[in-house]
Amino acid sequence: MKNLHEMALSARKAFYEISVASLEKRNAVLSALARLLKENKDTVFEANRCDMDAAEKENLAGPLLHRLLFGAEKLDQAICGLKALTELPDPLNKTISATEIADSLNLYRVSCPIGVIGVIFESRPDALIQISSLCIKSGNAVLLKGGREALKTNQVLCSLVRKALADSSLPADAAQLLETREDVAQMLKEDTLIDLIIPRGSNSFVRYIMDNSRIPVLGHSDGICHVYIDKSADLQTALKVAADSKVQNVSVCNAAETLLVHHDIAPLFLPRASSLFGQANVQLRGDAETQKLISCIPATDQDWSTEYLDYILSVKIVYSLQEAVEHINHYGSHHTDCIVTEDPGNASAFMNMVDSAGVYWNVSTRFADGFVYGLGAEVGIATGKLHARGPMGLEGLTTYKYKLIGNGQTMQEVRNGSIRYTHRPVCGDCPV
Amino acid sequence: MKNLHEMALSARKAFYEISVASLEKRNAVLSALARLLKENKDTVFEANRCDMDAAEKENLAGPLLHRLLFGAEKLDQAICGLKALTELPDPLNKTISATEIADSLNLYRVSCPIGVIGVIFESRPDALIQISSLCIKSGNAVLLKGGREALKTNQVLCSLVRKALADSSLPADAAQLLETREDVAQMLKEDTLIDLIIPRGSNSFVRYIMDNSRIPVLGHSDGICHVYIDKSADLQTALKVAADSKVQNVSVCNAAETLLVHHDIAPLFLPRASSLFGQANVQLRGDAETQKLISCIPATDQDWSTEYLDYILSVKIVYSLQEAVEHINHYGSHHTDCIVTEDPGNASAFMNMVDSAGVYWNVSTRFADGFVYGLGAEVGIATGKLHARGPMGLEGLTTYKYKLIGNGQTMQEVRNGSIRYTHRPVCGDCPV
Repeated sequence: MKNLHEMALSARKAFYEISVASLEKRNAVLSALARLLKENKDTVFEANRCDMDAAEKENLAGPLLHRLLFGAEKLDQAICGLKALTELPDPLNKTISATEIADSLNLYRVSCPIGVIGVIFESRPDALIQISSLCIKSGNAVLLKGGREALKTNQVLCSLVRKALADSSLPADAAQLLETREDVAQMLKEDTLIDLIIPRGSNSFVRYIMDNSRIPVLGHSDGICHVYIDKSADLQTALKVAADSKVQNVSVCNAAETLLVHHDIAPLFLPRASSLFGQANVQLRGDAETQKLISCIPATDQDWSTEYLDYILSVKIVYSLQEAVEHINHYGSHHTDCIVTEDPGNASAFMNMVDSAGVYWNVSTRFADGFVYGLGAEVGIATGKLHARGPMGLEGLTTYKYKLIGNGQTMQEVRNGSIRYTHRPVCGDCPV
Repeated sequence: MKNLHEMALSARKAFYEISVASLEKRNAVLSALARLLKENKDTVFEANRCDMDAAEKENLAGPLLHRLLFGAEKLDQAICGLKALTELPDPLNKTISATEIADSLNLYRVSCPIGVIGVIFESRPDALIQISSLCIKSGNAVLLKGGREALKTNQVLCSLVRKALADSSLPADAAQLLETREDVAQMLKEDTLIDLIIPRGSNSFVRYIMDNSRIPVLGHSDGICHVYIDKSADLQTALKVAADSKVQNVSVCNAAETLLVHHDIAPLFLPRASSLFGQANVQLRGDAETQKLISCIPATDQDWSTEYLDYILSVKIVYSLQEAVEHINHYGSHHTDCIVTEDPGNASAFMNMVDSAGVYWNVSTRFADGFVYGLGAEVGIATGKLHARGPMGLEGLTTYKYKLIGNGQTMQEVRNGSIRYTHRPVCGDCPV
């Protein structure tokens, strides 16, 4: 069996091959994978049953078991996802900009894949299919490390991905499965062979990765999302958006954790919200002002920076939009934050000043998702600010290169005046 | 005097203010700075004379002294640069894409600044003006650390930048000067306040920064650029491009360090190239095959990964385009690499397979520069693959956020079927 360094080396080699494979070839891999999943569903289900049995013996919590399960429904969804991904346009070889630098000297900025990408993801085995198919469609090679509990399922799924690559005459090593924590530690050291690490998990996990690698990291970490009820909010909209942001699914990163309420609307809004959240069994933790208006548990400073992922909501009364913005920028995680207001000026101020990947006006934070955004699928939700922000789909897995096409121009000719810069936009795509 | 943490805190506060300043206000800072540079030129020149005197006493090398000098010519260039930058369009608040997600629910991807940026640059004081003006125009706050030799000049220049900010009613702390190495070490720890570090310097320096910070790094490190002479190259073009790439300016990152020559054209090309390089006092270091054709020093394996920044060129004969590409991807620094050929198919293969920020066809590698590319100016040349590649101007200093505008939509309504996704492109810019 290959060690991690050998895996990274062969992934790099595979990347150079898949990076120049035609769209037809890359799509053929996705179609082959859909077919192989159907043909081998019993093997997949059996491996998953082994993982589920072991997890039950270890008394894994119900939601974790639910994520680990890969049955007929998940298989159908995965196959649908592959079909949808096949139909998306090619993210590669797109001419992003074109400039005439000088006579007969054209500069093209063209999209291209990133390289070898290491993705560390949680217990859902369907994530393996999503991540590897996004990487293959975008011409990247991928090293995959899934949750320990899902190892047997992931082994079968990854072998099908590799078979799909080979069936389409592409190197199987464009997708490889890491099986141990030691592999992950080794992977973090391969900064000359691996171009990007995408860790999905807790804030502390993402920080651990950043502290232990000089490979760039696009972290998918905490979601401390806020809903701010402005003084000029419509009451019904405010109740609807606040409730959905919190209770529609409490265990996801785009669920709200903190409700900020403008002082002027609080006496009207909070009692109704309190009764609504009471019905949904949401525990409210309020600041001193909130406690004057509704019955709730006192919030501590730590509440403002806690991602509950549970039926708990912290509530704070603010005296201005500015105070709400400052609270969010200080305590939030730059994921997704919403203002409920009927005042376009306040909406604009909030959306421009809040320093988050998603800034929403009168809509539930639960919409922060790659499929919802029309990206097809997502490899994660980036909470950093560079390269890609928010849900990361095919485009987030590409970068660009500059292609400069001349007929022998030299800098010496620029210096002596025989070449002059024109800097004119050029029509049309890069010819090579 | 503030310590580094206090500086970073006040920079963050200043960022929130400058990030929402109008284009007029940000441009006014640049105009004020141009005026202040003119008015205070004697103070600038005097500070620079102190730095130059100290550097001469320390026997700094001639090229370093030349970079340190900030006289009337550099001042004029800086003022011209500020004017050109003022005229560039606003990089902020551009609607990059717009999608209707569902009825009355529109998603806009809009450009915005990154935040607080730490830039560590070399001895050229004019870099301070370029970097801070690019950051101000793009709505970012900047912490600047220049070369130790230029401290007095940088102090005066930074005080003028700060005055220009204050004169335009923007916080002076949007630009602050770090003065010691300890400040840099402290800065690397402020990952909750600083969003990006841009180190300009050697490969080992950039690696040191990456190893000591979890803040994302856009490194400007080595340039090991190649010129590959294809078998179907035009001889005159090959000689012109090879010579200019090497000798037009040997001490810059976009100068060529290695020449790869296809075996079939080597007997024709190499003797002429050798005589051309001989006239320019370039020392050639060749592999075994090269040594058979021209007189040269034997190249060692280390030569292929060395950035000489000097009148030295390594030369290797290859038997195929594939071999040239593999050599470049293995030994190069992903900066800028050129093919000389008359065959469009070979050009296309080279440009798609070489994994570099700039891939050139029949043009000198010396064109890899932000001004040449029409970006106005550059804050550095990124040799990584994420976020920005190659010369990094205003656009590289921006990121984006998603603005989602609805009228109270909830995920619950999607689940129960009363909201359906439309995913249609929308015309027009984001209204808020």
